[in-house]
Amino acid sequence: MSETTLDQLPLRDELRGQSAYGAPQLDVPVQLNTNENPYSPSQALIDDLGDTVAKLAPQLNRYPERDAVELRDALADYVSRQTGVSVTRENLWAANGSNEVLQQLLQAFGGPGRTAIGFTPSYSMHPLLAAGTQTEFLSIPRGEDFRIDVAVALEAVDKHQPDVVFVTTPNNPTGDVTSLEDIERIVAAAPGIVIVDEAYAEFSASPSATTLLRKYPAKLVVSRTMSKAFDFAGGRLGYFVADPAFVEAVMLVRLPYHLSVLSQAAAIVALRHADDTLATVAKLSRERDRVAARLTELGYRIVPSESNFLFFGRFDDPHATWQAFLDRGVLIRDVGVGGHLRVTIGLPSENDAFLAAAEELSKEN
Amino acid sequence: MSETTLDQLPLRDELRGQSAYGAPQLDVPVQLNTNENPYSPSQALIDDLGDTVAKLAPQLNRYPERDAVELRDALADYVSRQTGVSVTRENLWAANGSNEVLQQLLQAFGGPGRTAIGFTPSYSMHPLLAAGTQTEFLSIPRGEDFRIDVAVALEAVDKHQPDVVFVTTPNNPTGDVTSLEDIERIVAAAPGIVIVDEAYAEFSASPSATTLLRKYPAKLVVSRTMSKAFDFAGGRLGYFVADPAFVEAVMLVRLPYHLSVLSQAAAIVALRHADDTLATVAKLSRERDRVAARLTELGYRIVPSESNFLFFGRFDDPHATWQAFLDRGVLIRDVGVGGHLRVTIGLPSENDAFLAAAEELSKEN
Repeated sequence: MSETTLDQLPLRDELRGQSAYGAPQLDVPVQLNTNENPYSPSQALIDDLGDTVAKLAPQLNRYPERDAVELRDALADYVSRQTGVSVTRENLWAANGSNEVLQQLLQAFGGPGRTAIGFTPSYSMHPLLAAGTQTEFLSIPRGEDFRIDVAVALEAVDKHQPDVVFVTTPNNPTGDVTSLEDIERIVAAAPGIVIVDEAYAEFSASPSATTLLRKYPAKLVVSRTMSKAFDFAGGRLGYFVADPAFVEAVMLVRLPYHLSVLSQAAAIVALRHADDTLATVAKLSRERDRVAARLTELGYRIVPSESNFLFFGRFDDPHATWQAFLDRGVLIRDVGVGGHLRVTIGLPSENDAFLAAAEELSKEN
Repeated sequence: MSETTLDQLPLRDELRGQSAYGAPQLDVPVQLNTNENPYSPSQALIDDLGDTVAKLAPQLNRYPERDAVELRDALADYVSRQTGVSVTRENLWAANGSNEVLQQLLQAFGGPGRTAIGFTPSYSMHPLLAAGTQTEFLSIPRGEDFRIDVAVALEAVDKHQPDVVFVTTPNNPTGDVTSLEDIERIVAAAPGIVIVDEAYAEFSASPSATTLLRKYPAKLVVSRTMSKAFDFAGGRLGYFVADPAFVEAVMLVRLPYHLSVLSQAAAIVALRHADDTLATVAKLSRERDRVAARLTELGYRIVPSESNFLFFGRFDDPHATWQAFLDRGVLIRDVGVGGHLRVTIGLPSENDAFLAAAEELSKEN
């Protein structure tokens, strides 16, 4: 049954020769490659989840609540507290990871004949999601130190008149923050919508772009995820905050019953224990600063980070250095840009193992 | 924050004026409108799920196994037993409901400039998924008694040269089966791929189209779901069976980590208890035949069904009759076609309530 090759299938032309996206999932002692939160959920959360699943399991034969109203209430409550901007379920939308949220936004506001721009290097799924929805994606290079050069950004917006603009802040893989002032200048100039991807917002002291929502209701969407700060990468829950009209828009393209009973319930449980979970964020931020200081001492170049990872270099052959870390039992991420590598901040012992390898490698160069 | 209307957003033109898909989710005593299995999961399954979640919860901070290998093994084992066609994980792909499976297939094999055909009335998500992926969808009307007229089907295939052909069997909303011989004639003639949607396969005694996979490896995909026979609508798990090349193809378009830890684990648990669960299928099939016989006695017209629902008529004003059932506490489905309504087979007591309403309404006409 396996004599047929992919080439023999009537695949779309633009997919031919592509390979599947994804970081290697390797079994290595120290895994610092996917920006997960290294802390397990609390026992209280685990117990609550067990009770909740036991209560819901007898109804698994029924479709989930299609519009995830209770979950959106819980998210609205959390966002209101975390950002200081009061929002309700009408402002919230949730899906299976921020990837699905962004895909839905591109289906509604991008698509064939439309254009998106992003400031790269940035989250590598943005161009892939654009391709998957037939949206043309234009990469506008970041400036020095991988920061968005606002003059260049505004020129690109003016020239390309993009339907969708992506601004990732804190940016992945570089960790730097774009200021609210700079975001506002881009939003004000954008002819279409601007998606501010705040996947790492909780690790940053900078204000959220949700504070701009009232001023730009028909343009601005802030996307977020529970994968990082929330200890919940395995639960796959992304969301956006925007004017209610954006929620109405994605409801036209979302797959009905896209969020399972278990996904909705588990996310509600995780939000109920947000205070416990988010206590890990402060720990991780302190560790990030410790690791950054030590890397600097060792002679590496660091991009200032307000996230749970560091982008460090500079390497003539980043892939060889990535392999050298892996040979020492430390899996980090080669994102293939700018002579740098990305390391996720883990448990103190994991960070120590990473730093020991980094010290060893710094002596070899 | 809610002065903005959907019209003011830069939505794609083809979405303007559309409304969101979805059956009404009403709180009514007897709900026979979404083809769910009315039996709750067994206590053994519920206990197993509780144990499994407790075991996995401490790792919810980590991303799920991206390619769902263990789940695909379990699905392959089930499909091999249920259809008699020996398949392995390489032949299996899973996603959040068959809607996501079909969306991924359309992203890879449909899309802008490509065409899909379906034989309608059929599953109403097929044209919506086509629209969501910018695939042109052509409706080829079914013939008498809502069966596919193969001569008409072959003519349509020849004329339109579709990239994707949908054949739903047992068909939703009509319940009838397309014979393997007819499916093979369509597959043989199709220039692109043929997706046989077997969402209701377990309710039918007819052989599965998986028996044709070895003969048409580069053309045929059989999609299925755990929502119906498996008591698992709330778990949202769809899958397809095909040549391994099709699995490689959808891996180019799937969102990374699309299936959460909990979705994968819950589906594996459900498959472990398949024998218990599928015992309900025989009960439901008997009830279907009982309800069909009684409706016929009452003077309704029935389409012969091998699924867990009945398509019955004929009504001058189906929506008024739908409302009349609802007024009697029975929620069925108005699918808006052919002077008929669709009723899901529920528990015997629910079916009795439905039949009582049907009897009352038959006297009024």
